[in-house]
Amino acid sequence: MINIAKHDIKQLALDYGTPVYVYDKQKIIKNYELLYNSFKKYYDKIKIHYSVKANSNTNILKIFKELESGVDCSSPYEVLLAKYSGFEDEKIIYTGNYESYSDFSTLTDYNIKINLDDISSFRRMHNILTPEIISFRINPGIGKGGYEGITTGGTDAKFGVPYEKASYAYQLAKDNGFKRFGIQMMTGSNNLEPYYFAQSVEKLMMIAGSIFEKIDAKPEYIDIGGGFGIPYEDDEETLNIDLTAKLITEIFQEKCEKYGFGSPELIMEPGRFLVGNAGWLISKVTGVKHSYKHFVGLDSGMGTLLRPALYGAKHRAYVYGKDTPEWNVNLCGQICENSDIFSKNVFLPQIEEGDIVIMSDVGAYGYTMSSNYNNRPRPAEILLDENSVELIRRRENFDDLIRLY
Amino acid sequence: MINIAKHDIKQLALDYGTPVYVYDKQKIIKNYELLYNSFKKYYDKIKIHYSVKANSNTNILKIFKELESGVDCSSPYEVLLAKYSGFEDEKIIYTGNYESYSDFSTLTDYNIKINLDDISSFRRMHNILTPEIISFRINPGIGKGGYEGITTGGTDAKFGVPYEKASYAYQLAKDNGFKRFGIQMMTGSNNLEPYYFAQSVEKLMMIAGSIFEKIDAKPEYIDIGGGFGIPYEDDEETLNIDLTAKLITEIFQEKCEKYGFGSPELIMEPGRFLVGNAGWLISKVTGVKHSYKHFVGLDSGMGTLLRPALYGAKHRAYVYGKDTPEWNVNLCGQICENSDIFSKNVFLPQIEEGDIVIMSDVGAYGYTMSSNYNNRPRPAEILLDENSVELIRRRENFDDLIRLY
Repeated sequence: MINIAKHDIKQLALDYGTPVYVYDKQKIIKNYELLYNSFKKYYDKIKIHYSVKANSNTNILKIFKELESGVDCSSPYEVLLAKYSGFEDEKIIYTGNYESYSDFSTLTDYNIKINLDDISSFRRMHNILTPEIISFRINPGIGKGGYEGITTGGTDAKFGVPYEKASYAYQLAKDNGFKRFGIQMMTGSNNLEPYYFAQSVEKLMMIAGSIFEKIDAKPEYIDIGGGFGIPYEDDEETLNIDLTAKLITEIFQEKCEKYGFGSPELIMEPGRFLVGNAGWLISKVTGVKHSYKHFVGLDSGMGTLLRPALYGAKHRAYVYGKDTPEWNVNLCGQICENSDIFSKNVFLPQIEEGDIVIMSDVGAYGYTMSSNYNNRPRPAEILLDENSVELIRRRENFDDLIRLY
Repeated sequence: MINIAKHDIKQLALDYGTPVYVYDKQKIIKNYELLYNSFKKYYDKIKIHYSVKANSNTNILKIFKELESGVDCSSPYEVLLAKYSGFEDEKIIYTGNYESYSDFSTLTDYNIKINLDDISSFRRMHNILTPEIISFRINPGIGKGGYEGITTGGTDAKFGVPYEKASYAYQLAKDNGFKRFGIQMMTGSNNLEPYYFAQSVEKLMMIAGSIFEKIDAKPEYIDIGGGFGIPYEDDEETLNIDLTAKLITEIFQEKCEKYGFGSPELIMEPGRFLVGNAGWLISKVTGVKHSYKHFVGLDSGMGTLLRPALYGAKHRAYVYGKDTPEWNVNLCGQICENSDIFSKNVFLPQIEEGDIVIMSDVGAYGYTMSSNYNNRPRPAEILLDENSVELIRRRENFDDLIRLY
C-alpha cells in the first residue's frame, strides 16, 4: 500500500507527523450516495441522518451538510457541534440515553427532532422543552450487533422503551397535548445481514401499527436507526446494500399500507457505513522487538485507537511499500499496559524501524474514542480530496494536557 | 454513605457539579506511609517512585513531591508533567515501551533515570541521550495481573527484554562506555498475593546475578516495579503489605549477599496502591428505567470511567443517604453503546431521579483513561483535605471540544 486517494502516504506522514488519522472525502461522498440512491430507488421519502458519534470532526460534518444529509446527535454537545458545523434545526435529531434535565436545558434554543429514550425522559423533557414533534426510541425486544457491547436492542439493552410499554408512552405524550409523532428504533451496530434489518424493521412496523391505532394517530416519520456494517476482515463480505434497501422498503411500505400510515418519512442514522472505510490511521514503527514473540512497536496506541483493546476488534494493517507477508508479528501500541496490542499473530511483510504502518477502516469510532492515557497527545486528523490535503484537527501538545488546571 | 473525608458528598455535588472525581489527600498520604514504612522496617535503602500513569493530575503529583517520593513516568510528556509539578531530575524515572527517537529527543534537557524497554531502544537512545546510569526492563518470562490486559510479564507480554537476552543488552551498554547500572522488572498490575511478589523478585535477582557476573559490575538500583493491588470487591482481601515487604526484602537481601551486590537501592513503582482507594466518582441519577431489567442512568459514562467497559472491572457503588439494598439493578452510563454499563445485577437501595451515586476505588486509572466519546466533556476533579476542598482540574466545556480546529 502506497497511496490513499492518490496521495503518497509517506509524504503525508512527513508533512503532518505520525500518528495521524487520514480521511478520504470522495470515499465518504461515494458511501453516502450509494446508501441514499439504493433506498431512494425503492422509496421516495428517504432521510439520512449521519450519526455524529461515529466521527464528529466538524469538517467531516460539513461534508454531510454539503450532501444535504441530516445528523443524529447522541448528546447535547453533539447538537451544539451540529449547529457549529452549520446544520439547520430541521436537519438535527437528538437521540440520547437517560437524558438529564441538564441535557434538555442545553437544547431550549433549538427546534430539533427528539427521540426520547424512556417514558421518564418525557417527564423531564416536558418541563423544559416542547418540540413540535415527539418520538420515542423503542426496544423491540430483539437486538444484534457486531459485538456484545454494540448490541443495543433486546432484553439486556439499556436503551429505549420496551415495546410492551410503548403505547403508554405515546398516550402520555398525546394527553400532554402533542399531536405530531415519530418513532425510532436502533437494535445494534455493525450488522452485515440484510435479512436481519428486514426482520427488525418488520417488528418495529408492527409495534408502530399497534401504538398508532391505540392513540388514533399516524407517525410522520419512522426512524429505523443505523447499524449498516462494514467488513473489517478479509473473510467478511460487504453488506449487500441494494438487497438491504429492497427488503427494508418492501416491508416498510407493506406495513404503511396495512396500518394506513400513508407515506411517512423513512429516516435512518448510519455512522460507520458512511465514514468507517474512509479513514486510515498512519503510524510509524518505533522499534522491533524479538522477545518470546516478534513485537512491532508503533507510535500510536490504545489512546489513539481504542477498538482493538475494547472489543477485540480487528483492523487490517499494511506496511508502506511492502506487499509480501513474511512473518508473524504482534502489532503493539506504546501504552504501558498489555491491552495495548492492535493485532496478535498477523502475517505482515518484514518490518524495520521507521517503516510506516497503515491501519484501515478507522474512520468510525477512531478519534471519537481517543484519550490522553499515559499523557500521550491525541493525534492530528487530515482530510484528503483529489487535489488537496487539509489539516482538519491539529495534534495536541503538552500545553493542551495542562490547560485545565 | 454520606461523607468522604468528613465532607458531605451532596454538598460537593452541589458545589462542583456532577460527574466529579473526588480525592482524599490524607488517604493518599496514609497509603504512602504504610507502604514506605512497611518496607523501610526491613531494608533501609527503599525508594518509592509513584507511577504517574495511574493518576497524573499535577496536584496529585505535588502530594507525592511533598512526601519526598519519586515518580515513574511512562511517556515523555509524563516526564514534562513531573518537571511541571516540581520534581527534581534525580527523582524521575522514565520507563517507556518501544521508545521512539522522538520520545528520547524530548528528554535531552533532563538528567533522569531510564529503564530501557529493549535492546533496540538502547541504540535509539544512545544517538541522542547519555544518562549517567542505564537500566533495562527485564521480562522474567512470568507474569500475573488482575486482568489479562494488565499482565505485563511472560511470553505474551510486549514489555521488556526477555531475560535470556539480558546479558547481551548490558554488555552492549558496557561496550558503549556505560559504567553505572540499574535493572528493572514489572510483571503485572493489581496483584493481591504476597508470595507472587517474592517469587518474581527472586527470579529478577537470579537474572541480575547472572547478568552482573557476566559484565563484571554491580547494580546501583534494583527496580521491582509495582503491581501492589487493592480490593475492588467485598470478597477480595486487602494485600498484606507487611508480609509482602518482609518476603520481598528477605529474598532481596539474601540474593544481594549471594551475588556480592552490596546494598543497592530497592526501587518500587506503585500507582494503584497509593491512589486507587483514595478516589471516588460522584454521579447523579438522570433517570430510572423499568425495561426488561431495571436500569439506573447516570450522568457519567464509559468516557468518564473506562475500566468497567474495558476490563469488566467492578467498582462498588453507594447511594447517598441510603443503606438498605432492596433491588437488583444495572447501573448505566449515558453513552450510546451497550458497553457503557458500570455494574450489572447489583443489589442497591431504591433509587430515584436526582439521587447521588458514589463509585469507589476510582483514584487510579479513572480520569487518566477518560475521553470525549459522544462529545461528553471530561469531568472536574477535586481534592479534599481535612478542612478544605480544592478544584484541581476544571470540567471541560463546549469550547474545549472545538479548540483544536
